[in-house]
Order: sequence, then structure tokens, then C-alpha cells
Amino acid sequence: MADSRFFKKSTKLSLKNILKLCKLQVPIKNFKDKTFVDLSSLDNSNNNHITFFDNILYLNQLKKTKAGACFLKKEFLKYCPRNTLPIIVNNPYHCFAVVTNSFYPLKKNMSGVHPKAFINKNVKLNKSILIGPGSVISENVKIGNDCQIGSNTVILPGVVIGNETHIGSNCTIGYSILGNNVIIHNGVNLGQDGFGFAQLNNENLKVQQLGRVIIKNKVEIGANTTVDRGSGPDTIISEGTKIDNLVQIGHNVIIGKNCIIVAQSGISGSTTIGNNVMIGGQVGIAGHLKIGNNVKIAAKSGVMKNISDGSIMGGIPAVQIKNWHKQTIIMKQLIEKRFDDK
Amino acid sequence: MADSRFFKKSTKLSLKNILKLCKLQVPIKNFKDKTFVDLSSLDNSNNNHITFFDNILYLNQLKKTKAGACFLKKEFLKYCPRNTLPIIVNNPYHCFAVVTNSFYPLKKNMSGVHPKAFINKNVKLNKSILIGPGSVISENVKIGNDCQIGSNTVILPGVVIGNETHIGSNCTIGYSILGNNVIIHNGVNLGQDGFGFAQLNNENLKVQQLGRVIIKNKVEIGANTTVDRGSGPDTIISEGTKIDNLVQIGHNVIIGKNCIIVAQSGISGSTTIGNNVMIGGQVGIAGHLKIGNNVKIAAKSGVMKNISDGSIMGGIPAVQIKNWHKQTIIMKQLIEKRFDDK
Amino acid sequence: MADSRFFKKSTKLSLKNILKLCKLQVPIKNFKDKTFVDLSSLDNSNNNHITFFDNILYLNQLKKTKAGACFLKKEFLKYCPRNTLPIIVNNPYHCFAVVTNSFYPLKKNMSGVHPKAFINKNVKLNKSILIGPGSVISENVKIGNDCQIGSNTVILPGVVIGNETHIGSNCTIGYSILGNNVIIHNGVNLGQDGFGFAQLNNENLKVQQLGRVIIKNKVEIGANTTVDRGSGPDTIISEGTKIDNLVQIGHNVIIGKNCIIVAQSGISGSTTIGNNVMIGGQVGIAGHLKIGNNVKIAAKSGVMKNISDGSIMGGIPAVQIKNWHKQTIIMKQLIEKRFDDK
Repeated sequence: MADSRFFKKSTKLSLKNILKLCKLQVPIKNFKDKTFVDLSSLDNSNNNHITFFDNILYLNQLKKTKAGACFLKKEFLKYCPRNTLPIIVNNPYHCFAVVTNSFYPLKKNMSGVHPKAFINKNVKLNKSILIGPGSVISENVKIGNDCQIGSNTVILPGVVIGNETHIGSNCTIGYSILGNNVIIHNGVNLGQDGFGFAQLNNENLKVQQLGRVIIKNKVEIGANTTVDRGSGPDTIISEGTKIDNLVQIGHNVIIGKNCIIVAQSGISGSTTIGNNVMIGGQVGIAGHLKIGNNVKIAAKSGVMKNISDGSIMGGIPAVQIKNWHKQTIIMKQLIEKRFDDK
Repeated sequence: MADSRFFKKSTKLSLKNILKLCKLQVPIKNFKDKTFVDLSSLDNSNNNHITFFDNILYLNQLKKTKAGACFLKKEFLKYCPRNTLPIIVNNPYHCFAVVTNSFYPLKKNMSGVHPKAFINKNVKLNKSILIGPGSVISENVKIGNDCQIGSNTVILPGVVIGNETHIGSNCTIGYSILGNNVIIHNGVNLGQDGFGFAQLNNENLKVQQLGRVIIKNKVEIGANTTVDRGSGPDTIISEGTKIDNLVQIGHNVIIGKNCIIVAQSGISGSTTIGNNVMIGGQVGIAGHLKIGNNVKIAAKSGVMKNISDGSIMGGIPAVQIKNWHKQTIIMKQLIEKRFDDK
Repeated sequence: MADSRFFKKSTKLSLKNILKLCKLQVPIKNFKDKTFVDLSSLDNSNNNHITFFDNILYLNQLKKTKAGACFLKKEFLKYCPRNTLPIIVNNPYHCFAVVTNSFYPLKKNMSGVHPKAFINKNVKLNKSILIGPGSVISENVKIGNDCQIGSNTVILPGVVIGNETHIGSNCTIGYSILGNNVIIHNGVNLGQDGFGFAQLNNENLKVQQLGRVIIKNKVEIGANTTVDRGSGPDTIISEGTKIDNLVQIGHNVIIGKNCIIVAQSGISGSTTIGNNVMIGGQVGIAGHLKIGNNVKIAAKSGVMKNISDGSIMGGIPAVQIKNWHKQTIIMKQLIEKRFDDK
């Protein structure tokens, strides 16, 4: 299905292999020898494709799918067409993801430093590194094994990069320590000055920012996102956290492990965020706050107070999500009562 | 009026010519031989300038303008000063735009691939192309006639670009098929991975994104905007749609024809938007929604449900705009009643 | 304290020197000969460090600090530990900033045009300029004394840059006149077309944008921020104004002196903003408005009307901040009354 100009499919996969990849022990008679040549969405599948169903919005597409097999949850079994083999799992999307990554393994790019890259003196490079044309590696930078750096990216002096980390094109990375298996997308800026000014008589004195950006293992940072370095303490993004495009992370922010931060959100300076926190798109969080573990914040919320562990919040200012929904209901009722026209 | 360091004026224009350009058949006696040397805003004009009036906020400036002529609607004729020739039209701004583009035609840059650009093997380039220093054109890229690519832009492998398309500087374009007469501004990133993770036990498994970005003819995309490629299906922006700066378009989003999307808006994954939709600044639209044709969404709205054709919406969560205005009125009344102090 | 891979500390400072730098005449007996080797935050200090206290949220850290001295306001003197010398001042953070900039002076980079930069014909460069590899300086650009330009930055034709101005990496600067002591961070785009279209029969005619971007002295512009050039009039940012990351400034906007604009805010076309205005994060301001002097706008507000001098505003649509707080209180009370469960 994928455009071969951009993606290389590895091979076909047998059902047996697929079940093994997904660590499934589903007893599926008669079908053990079935193979799949590709994967697809519900509505674009044919009998040689495997697909998944994990969102009630697409129920009609499930009913009409022509896929050869479909990962789905038990309660939707009854909607699976007769010619589609249902594979009942708890995590349809996760299984589909595993199969996707097996059909289309990430390209191993050839390594090499492009002759049009500029490598400064005193740079430690491993042989297996790939650096694209126009990229600039400044003095005293250290880069680990099996890293890739795109084109026209600028790594400023002293930056340290771990192993198997990928950095896109047109990025600028300064004052930063990056771990292993980090992914930095195109256009990201790490480590510029935080927004620190001391006001006196309407003049804004710029304050030197003396901290760093620390990016732990398996973090992913989306295109054109900006992460300011700390003012003295560091700005820290912990292991496994995934950040979307156009997000702003202020100075001294500390983000825990395995968080998800959706596009265009902004986290103000010196705020601390726990582990497994999910932040929707266009959320704003004020500075100097503490957000607990396992918190969920609805898109577009404005957070102005600390949030305790496990809370689900929404609104501006953000409140418990059930209260935010009540606000919506009350406003609707007030309009009906007052204007009496709808 | 325009700074000659940046803009070259072509020549003066006679009134006759201007009327022809605007396809107007206004019977204007006595003035047929009048010529204009330039155009200007209402408050900066002199007798040799042509101007326009199209926003009631500037009525005082209309009354005092010294322009030689002014495009305006019939109902404002009475405010036009005696020494300014009124040209009565239905679309004052559109006429002014036509005249602007005639006084200051877009520069035809000389073509040529700069010796400091890097062109990979197997690239198809037309002779009339302009590519600036530091730009990187990767293998198997195809570029049509009369295209311009700025400096330090990166075109990743396999990308296809149509005719007369302009791409700015410091862009990264990957996994994309671009049509004709497309304008991509500086710092834009097209085609990076969508934000796709499959969660299991608090770990986020990255899912390979196998779709593309399809940009149809006459689309314009503003500075530092990001468009993620599809996850399997494509991300599609249809003909004539104009997108402002710092906008985020998620994976699998489909945007119809001739839409306007103002700065810092974000459209979440798998949402479909109809034709002629106008989206104000800083709007957020949730994922997997259907927005109809001719919809208008007020700035800062948060859209969480499908919207039917022709609706005008506002608020968070977005409601019919008349109801959003009622919310504002009710809150004001409640405050007056409850706090009794203003 | 600061990582020596990124920051060079100059020397130690005597208390006497510090008091002089801060223009303080505090009579501090017994301590005059004390010297400090570094500065630090309250919780990371030891006896050779100087620190500051200026935010009630960190009162517990003040009580436990091990710093040798601490700038603080008079009313907090009683919380200062016995072994920490209190230095009572009106502006603790401003004093700390002065000391910071003295301990860690901004690096004077060596000057020079990197051989991998591309300098076009007819460019006026001063000898003391620093230009990094991959940067492109187009024809007819003029750059003043003691300027620094990072790597892979593109300066388009005709741009004028004053003295002691710093421009980061991966920026694109066009159609702009920049003053002295300006700081432009990485990834900034100045001077691209404003979002100007004239609609007719659902088609959007692009209107040539004939104005410039004028950046006055001591302005700072954050990473990945975009500033569109004027449509005919100019876009102007006045002296001393500081703009954070990912901000959008539309065409013809005029911003006064010494304003602070926090990250991800957007200012729509033709709006005028006074002096000393503070705009929180993710604020949106509609077009064609007048915002007075000394106005403060809370984070996430949506401004749809003119604002008079000295007002403090919040909410969507923005109202006087006390009324916005009242809205929050009323919604809370309505929920309690109506749902009776909390």
C-alpha cells in the first residue's frame, strides 16, 4: 500500500509469524498457513491485508472491510465480516503497530559524514555515524554510535549525544546532553536562552541562562518544537516522553517519564510534571507548578494551579473534567432559559 | 511608496488601464486621462496615488485621504473627499489587490542552480529552476518547470514538485507530492512522522508512518508551519487553500479547496475539512471529526464535534456562534447581578 | 555550578564588588571581606555561593538554604537562616541578574567570516563580524559593527543590520531593517509575506506585500517566532521589547517599547500595541485593534476589542481581570447549586 518511492516493504508475513511478533497465543484453526502481503486501513484493505479496529467512529468501516484479518477487541467480534479473520486482542492498535514496524522496518541508512558537512576540530565521531550535507558540528561535540544527523542541522559547542539517536534537518542543538535512542524532528531548537528578564523601571535586563537541556533515552521531540535551557538548574525531559510539533518548553521545566504532550502546548518555566502524564493539544501550563503522576489534561486547557496525582482536568482555568463538562451543560441551560429560542 | 531596496515598481498606470485590469466598466467622465504613479494606504496617499476603503474602522482616514482615487463601496461614496475620485465597486480590496500586483509584479528571479547547492544523483531538474546556496536536493527528487527553491532548504528523497512552485529557505520537505503554483514559506516542515504511538503498560511504541503529504495546486503554507505525513492514508491539502504561519496539521487530515486557516491553529489527526472553510487564529480541532463545507470557526475556538455545512461556530467547546455570544452576555449579566458593583 | 563545557566563569567576586555592581549602599559590617566563588539557586547553594529569594513559592527553600548570602526583600528577613548573610533590596531578582552577568560574562566570540559561509556581491561587512558556516548573505545587505550571525542562517537581499546585533542559526531574515543590540534566536523568520488574500467567488487572490519589518534597538525575538512584513505600511517592533518563542506577529502590527510577549501568543494584522505592555503565553489578539500603554493581558486570553491604558485583562473574550475571576467563581457556584454533589 505504501508509496514505494518513500517506503520499502520487507516481505510477506505468515499469520503464525504475526501472532508470534505480537506475543499472542490465540488458537486460530484452519488459518495457520495464511500469509499477508501488506497491511492497510479498514476501508482500503483486500484479502491479503491485515488491518485493525480500535475506534468506535469507524464501526461502519469495520462492517464493510475486505481485509483478510483484523485485530479487534472481543466486544466488536460480532461486527467483523464473515470473510475477515478476527484476531481478538486487548490492544488492537498496539498489535497493528508491531506488525507495521515488521512489514516496514526503519531504513538503516548507510553511514558516513557527507563531504559538504562541516566538522569542527576536537569533535569525537564514531565510524557508524551519518551526517548530511550542510550540517555543522561545532568544537568539543561528542556523538555516540549509530547516530544520524540530517542536513543543514547545527550542533553547537560542547553538546553530547548518546547512541542510536536521530536528529533531523534544519535543527539547532545547543547547551544540551542527549541520551540514547532519542528522536529529534526537523526544525527543532534545543537549548536557546530561556525567557529571563529582570525588570527595573520598565527596562528589561537580560539574565544569562546558565543551565542545560537534558534529554533522556527514548524521548521524541516533534518538528519546530522549542526547548529552552535552564536558567541555572537544567531543563529535563525524562525517559520515554514523546512531544509533538510546535510545543514550547520553558526554562527549568522538568518532565517525567513516558509522558505524551500534544502539538502547540506550552509549559512555562520551572514547572514540574510527573510520570505518564497526557497533555492534549494547545494546553498552556503556568510556571512554578507541580503536576502529579498519571494526570490527564484535556486539549486547550489553561492550568493555573498544582494538579494532584491521577486527576483528569479541563477548561480555562482548568478544573476537574467532570466540572468542566458541567460548565458546558449549565451554559447551555442558561441560554435556553434566558433566550427561550432554542 | 515601497522601499526600493526590496521592491521594484514597474511603471505608472493610467486610470483607463486600471479599470481594464479590474474588469470594470465604470463610466468616469473627465478623469479618463488621469495616471497614477503608485498606490498607498488611505492616510499615506497623495494625489498621484490610488487607494481603497473596505473597513469601517478606517472611516476617519477615508474622510481625510489625499489620494487621487479610491476604490470603495457605493454606501460610502458620501465620505469620499471632493479631490479624491471615487471608484465604486463591490470588492474594493480585490480591485486594490489587482492594481498592487500590477504596480509591483512578482520578481522573475534569474534561474540557475547555485554552485553551493548540493544536488544528489538521479535528480530531475528543469533548466528554468532556481536553487539557492546550501539547499540539498536528495536522490530521486523530481522538480517541474519554473520552480524556485531558497537557501539551506532540504528536499528529502523521492519528493515530487510540480511547475511554478516556490519553496522558501530553511524548509525541510519529505514524503511529499507538491502540485503547481504552490508557495511554501520559510521554515516549513512537510512530511515528518505523524505523532503515532501505541501505548502498552505506560510505554509508547512508535508506529511507522507510511503515508505521504499531498499538496494540491495553488496551496500556500506559512512560515514555520508543520504538516505531518499520513500514517497509512495520506495527509491532503486541496487546491487553493491558504495556511498561515505556525499551524499544525496532523496525520491523515484532509483539507478541502479554497480554505483559509489563520496562524497557530491546529488540526488533529484524521479530521476531514470541507471546501471554503475559514478557520480563525489559534483554533484547535480534535481528531477524527468531519467539518462541512463553507463552515466558519471563530478565532481561539476548540472544536470537539462534527460541524455541518455552512455553520458558524465559536467558543470552547465550540457552539453556534450566536450561542457563544449569548454565553458572553449571560456571564456579564450574572456578574452584574451577583457582584452588584459594576 | 554551571557546566564548564558550556559556560566559562570569570572569577570570584568580593561582597564589596557585588554591592557596587548592584549600586547598593547597604551597611554590612563584618562581612566586607567575604568573597563568593559562584552563584546558585536557594536549594543548591553552599557557603561560597550567593543566591536570591523573590517568589513566595520557594519560602521553604529559603528557610533551608546553605548559601553564603541571599538577596531578599525586607519582609522576608526573618526567614533567612542564621548562616546566610541577608542583603535586603527592593529587587532581589534584578540584583541576582546583575551578579549573574558579572560571574558569567557573555562570550566575546572571535570574529571572522567562516570560509563555508556564502557572501554575495555588494555586501558591506565590518571586520569585527562573526558569520558561521553555511550562512548566506545576499546582495546589497549591510551589517554593522560587532555583529554575530550563526550557522545556516539566510539574510535576503537588501536587509540592513545595526551594530552589536546577534542572529542565531537557521534563521531567515528578509525585507527587514534591524537596529543595534538586537537578539534574534535560532529558527526565527522575519519578513515573509503577510497573510493577505482578496476573496472573490471563493478564490483567494494573493496580494503583494509591499512593507517591511522594522526591529528597533535592544529588541529580542525568541526561537521559531515569525514576524510578517507589512502589506504597505511596515510591521514595527519598538525599542526594548522582548518576544518569546513561537510567537506570531501579523502584518502592519506596531508594538511599543519595553513590552513582554510570552510564548505562543499571536497578534493579528494591523493591531497597535502601546508601551510597557505585558502579554501572557498563548494570548490571541484580533486584528485592527488598539491596545493602550501599560496593559497586562493574562495567559490564554482572546482579545477582541480595544483596551485602554493600564487595564488588566483576562478571558475569552477578554474582560477586566476582576470580572474574569468573577466568571470563574460564578461557574463554580452554579455547579455546586445545580449538581449538589461538590
